[in-house]
Amino acid sequence: MLKVGLLGAGRIGQVHAAVVAAQEGSKLAAVSDVYAPAAEELAAKYHAQMRSSDEIIADDTIDAVLIATSTDTHSDLIEAATQAGKAVMCEKPVDLSLERARACLKAVSETGRPVMIGFNRRFDPSFAAIRDSLAAGQIGKAELLSVTSFDPAPPPVEYIKVSGGLFRDMMIHDFDMTNFIMGETPVSISASGACLVDPEIGRVGDIDTAVVTLSYADGKLAVIKNSRRAAYGYDQRLELLGADGLLQAQNMLENTVVKSTGQGVISAKPTYFFIERYMPAYKAEWAAFVAAVQEGDDMPVSLQDGVQALAMAEAAQRSFDSSKPVRLADV
Amino acid sequence: MLKVGLLGAGRIGQVHAAVVAAQEGSKLAAVSDVYAPAAEELAAKYHAQMRSSDEIIADDTIDAVLIATSTDTHSDLIEAATQAGKAVMCEKPVDLSLERARACLKAVSETGRPVMIGFNRRFDPSFAAIRDSLAAGQIGKAELLSVTSFDPAPPPVEYIKVSGGLFRDMMIHDFDMTNFIMGETPVSISASGACLVDPEIGRVGDIDTAVVTLSYADGKLAVIKNSRRAAYGYDQRLELLGADGLLQAQNMLENTVVKSTGQGVISAKPTYFFIERYMPAYKAEWAAFVAAVQEGDDMPVSLQDGVQALAMAEAAQRSFDSSKPVRLADV
Amino acid sequence: MLKVGLLGAGRIGQVHAAVVAAQEGSKLAAVSDVYAPAAEELAAKYHAQMRSSDEIIADDTIDAVLIATSTDTHSDLIEAATQAGKAVMCEKPVDLSLERARACLKAVSETGRPVMIGFNRRFDPSFAAIRDSLAAGQIGKAELLSVTSFDPAPPPVEYIKVSGGLFRDMMIHDFDMTNFIMGETPVSISASGACLVDPEIGRVGDIDTAVVTLSYADGKLAVIKNSRRAAYGYDQRLELLGADGLLQAQNMLENTVVKSTGQGVISAKPTYFFIERYMPAYKAEWAAFVAAVQEGDDMPVSLQDGVQALAMAEAAQRSFDSSKPVRLADV
Amino acid sequence: MLKVGLLGAGRIGQVHAAVVAAQEGSKLAAVSDVYAPAAEELAAKYHAQMRSSDEIIADDTIDAVLIATSTDTHSDLIEAATQAGKAVMCEKPVDLSLERARACLKAVSETGRPVMIGFNRRFDPSFAAIRDSLAAGQIGKAELLSVTSFDPAPPPVEYIKVSGGLFRDMMIHDFDMTNFIMGETPVSISASGACLVDPEIGRVGDIDTAVVTLSYADGKLAVIKNSRRAAYGYDQRLELLGADGLLQAQNMLENTVVKSTGQGVISAKPTYFFIERYMPAYKAEWAAFVAAVQEGDDMPVSLQDGVQALAMAEAAQRSFDSSKPVRLADV
Repeated sequence: MLKVGLLGAGRIGQVHAAVVAAQEGSKLAAVSDVYAPAAEELAAKYHAQMRSSDEIIADDTIDAVLIATSTDTHSDLIEAATQAGKAVMCEKPVDLSLERARACLKAVSETGRPVMIGFNRRFDPSFAAIRDSLAAGQIGKAELLSVTSFDPAPPPVEYIKVSGGLFRDMMIHDFDMTNFIMGETPVSISASGACLVDPEIGRVGDIDTAVVTLSYADGKLAVIKNSRRAAYGYDQRLELLGADGLLQAQNMLENTVVKSTGQGVISAKPTYFFIERYMPAYKAEWAAFVAAVQEGDDMPVSLQDGVQALAMAEAAQRSFDSSKPVRLADV
Repeated sequence: MLKVGLLGAGRIGQVHAAVVAAQEGSKLAAVSDVYAPAAEELAAKYHAQMRSSDEIIADDTIDAVLIATSTDTHSDLIEAATQAGKAVMCEKPVDLSLERARACLKAVSETGRPVMIGFNRRFDPSFAAIRDSLAAGQIGKAELLSVTSFDPAPPPVEYIKVSGGLFRDMMIHDFDMTNFIMGETPVSISASGACLVDPEIGRVGDIDTAVVTLSYADGKLAVIKNSRRAAYGYDQRLELLGADGLLQAQNMLENTVVKSTGQGVISAKPTYFFIERYMPAYKAEWAAFVAAVQEGDDMPVSLQDGVQALAMAEAAQRSFDSSKPVRLADV
Repeated sequence: MLKVGLLGAGRIGQVHAAVVAAQEGSKLAAVSDVYAPAAEELAAKYHAQMRSSDEIIADDTIDAVLIATSTDTHSDLIEAATQAGKAVMCEKPVDLSLERARACLKAVSETGRPVMIGFNRRFDPSFAAIRDSLAAGQIGKAELLSVTSFDPAPPPVEYIKVSGGLFRDMMIHDFDMTNFIMGETPVSISASGACLVDPEIGRVGDIDTAVVTLSYADGKLAVIKNSRRAAYGYDQRLELLGADGLLQAQNMLENTVVKSTGQGVISAKPTYFFIERYMPAYKAEWAAFVAAVQEGDDMPVSLQDGVQALAMAEAAQRSFDSSKPVRLADV
Repeated sequence: MLKVGLLGAGRIGQVHAAVVAAQEGSKLAAVSDVYAPAAEELAAKYHAQMRSSDEIIADDTIDAVLIATSTDTHSDLIEAATQAGKAVMCEKPVDLSLERARACLKAVSETGRPVMIGFNRRFDPSFAAIRDSLAAGQIGKAELLSVTSFDPAPPPVEYIKVSGGLFRDMMIHDFDMTNFIMGETPVSISASGACLVDPEIGRVGDIDTAVVTLSYADGKLAVIKNSRRAAYGYDQRLELLGADGLLQAQNMLENTVVKSTGQGVISAKPTYFFIERYMPAYKAEWAAFVAAVQEGDDMPVSLQDGVQALAMAEAAQRSFDSSKPVRLADV
């Protein structure tokens, strides 16, 4: 039974707490948060202790630390927890600074402790099925991957300000997804974008709509489309053209009801946002982490994966800023 | 070049005129109608002659007669035309009287002339693909066939009065469809129905909604659902369960556009009614008639097929009237 | 916290045990089974006690009894548990004997204790959405309901022998679904059926394929199609035609991946069987039971509902046996 | 009745001949081709004359010239025909040389004669419905347009050699489509591409797979994906994200049959190639041309439209060659 300390009791921390508690093989032992009442409430709900993050990291009875704090604390906490011998699962992104993330990777590698980054979408059954189908040769060699990733509505501008920008905060999931599906990182990245959804986002120097093209060593291509707003809900689709066919992962709808009237043939909307859409993925992610720790296997998503996605976000940002393609090797 | 005389210049006659004129291998030579201006206008449009039906049947330069007149004239015209040596294509149903239809079949068989009944749906590419798929063994042995056949809106009550009732007028298409797909007629027919759409229809003694179950010699089953009204358009679907799978023919939609908004994911409606939905089928039907006449082949839908469908309608009517199943052999 | 005793540790008992244990507000306290090792294993998994059913019913610390034993024990256990003051949730069907089920209903009503029957499909989000949409007037007045309910594969013949037959064992779910959607029971029932899937099923006197038509007091209609085999998985669909439109609940697919190749456009199969398809429904069912017990509300599915569905199965069986429609009032 | 001279009796010329002949209001009067037997055969089929292109252009009884010859002759023929007073419909592209096309535009404008360029896809009912829906405000302001355009299989390398390259030959349709939907041309174009399908294509200096991003003055974005091969057929889809929703035009399938077996749920493939997919669009295109000529209205697709699409292809080619975005104003 893996005893788990959860750092961060915000929205995503609450998601993880429920998953840890429900998973056979793990137990939520302690919860911390800079806002004590949040930690207290969450700890009470799962019969865990409310502790500080330092206490949790120092506690030898805790086997694993799950980091769901604000991004600026991730690297420090990863380093501290691995140095204390913990297995670590940390939410994305590793850091907003690529340099800092790389230093963290170096520090962690010296501890030899396992760290997993929370790219939950890799555990979505449909996306995983696309990767498996490609690996099984069902559509031949990959040629052109498209990722559509639209949020239902933009976050508050206060969040945008500290988010690191669309590429590091939002598209980082999609960069990791291209790595997951393609099995390699691209050579070159070219970004276009604009502020179309909310002028406030533009005023704080960010964009809310973007198209990024990735070119790979052997010529194959990927394109990622992001928008902070889709009036119809969370739009999360993949499409992969291969030599022998096409694989598509479509949206999950709220239910299977179709209503036909004089207005048309109307299906349900996509599930609203990431908690609804990816709850099975969060569960599978955590189960994979627990299994890998228990078996001593490699992490299914490594800290290195987290650093690579961040480097791609950095390259995309530079491409957007300079209006020209940027080689990944140059960031 | 098959020279064709068209009897009847109403709505369905106009459809056929356009098809005959556009088909390589046939030419619209003459048109008749009890209402002369209709015949005149249609004849003018296709550079054909306006004639009486007697004149058309008597004209030795006419090779084939296409009967699109009111149902009560079908049997007489089929007999007259075949006795005059014509090949005949006649709209469904053969007759409202099963006895008269059987007499007509006998009379025609003595002439040896080919007669085709206009069960246009057999020529719908999707329904034909289901039959072909079954024949190719793709779903194993047929077990349970479902036919959904809803009109977009009921016809005027004046039409209902002389229509012969829902089973002979509307469901006759679906009876023929079950014969087409199953390749045999059922042993027993059980009908339920009601007047739910328009009380006027009930007042003239007819129903507008019905469910009919067909049982076959080897135990397999079919069910036909009819309604005179579907608010969303013409609903024409088939579904066949076999030992190894299911075949479904879905509705054709007006276009392929999908609109996703806060209201849901909205596709276009089904094509509105039979002319829109079955125009390709009308063309294929006529092409098949022309080819069969020219090659001397058996008609793809025979007069016998028309009589069988009528017998099934008769059995359904008796079942509905008596509230018990009726054996087809008993009508 | 509702303390629950589970009677029956077979397949469906195991499903319920997991649901009871995961539900906030209920706790699995005890498990019984005629085969002790099964009870022991299940009890151990959820830190519950292994007891006899008599002990569980007699235990004053147990608040509710969940009956998942073989059908022939249901009525006795329902009576015993309610007489002991328990709230009861019992799997369908109430009994194979309509007479015995009615006696049970009478006995229970004298205790005043709440009994819920496990028609889990009422809690399927899509079926519930259809009922809600109808109630909200979105398709006008109901006219014609179709229920498609095919199992992926037939059960062992040993099970068939004691099942009470297709109508009482399998279609009973669909009878309840028509009651749920229509909000009333039909006046008359007409059944057709055959043994097409497995001759062994015929040898023990049962059928495996059936079509049943239901007629309602105001003329509206319903048709239920059952097969014990669908090569492509569990096929569970509803379709309701109303005056202003059509509502359909489609199958849930295993994932959202679509593969397009030279062979066609290929989607995933429907989820395999009832555990996969209806797990969310089992959870919602149990949550509704717990809430109703705690609030003292009426059961969302009553014992009366269970008896009505059984009466419809009885009527269908008689209709099938006699080859004529049977009035529900006559059974 | 518009008397039409068709220049070019190849594959697309044959498509147009059938359309011209079937259209009320136009008549195929003459056909020319550099390969006389092709012109002869086509002329005979439609009872037209076989003539040289010079003769057709010089014939005062010819009202309109339809140019379906090889691309290198388009500009000269457009100029000659308009100078001879004809209305002209010309296949895309106007020319491979942007300079030549611009000179042609200037020359034509001096004649005042109407010229339409054959961007047939504008007349596809689903694409047109997307434009109409956007114009009607159904999804708010346009933000992000995606065009997926994959051919089923690459053309012979001999064709590729003289095609002008993927951007001018294939993607030019998609450039026009973005202009049609967006109602304006982009400011900047960024192209990525590779030879992935057929190494022979690379050997003659072309690519077969490309992603092009378009940026507009107000920030909105479009992305075009092209591949010369889709194993499952002709893939022609549009997707437009707006402030209030998403519009998608999906592929047309060969029929509406869905087959569910142990292998999955299998729909028909997309219609194979442009003739199957766009036949209704070719008919609507020609009808629009005839109507515009007869009414003296502006051409629904102008020569200016053709030049703009060519300029975008030129910009894309330069972007691909230089690996950086190119401003449309700079070509």
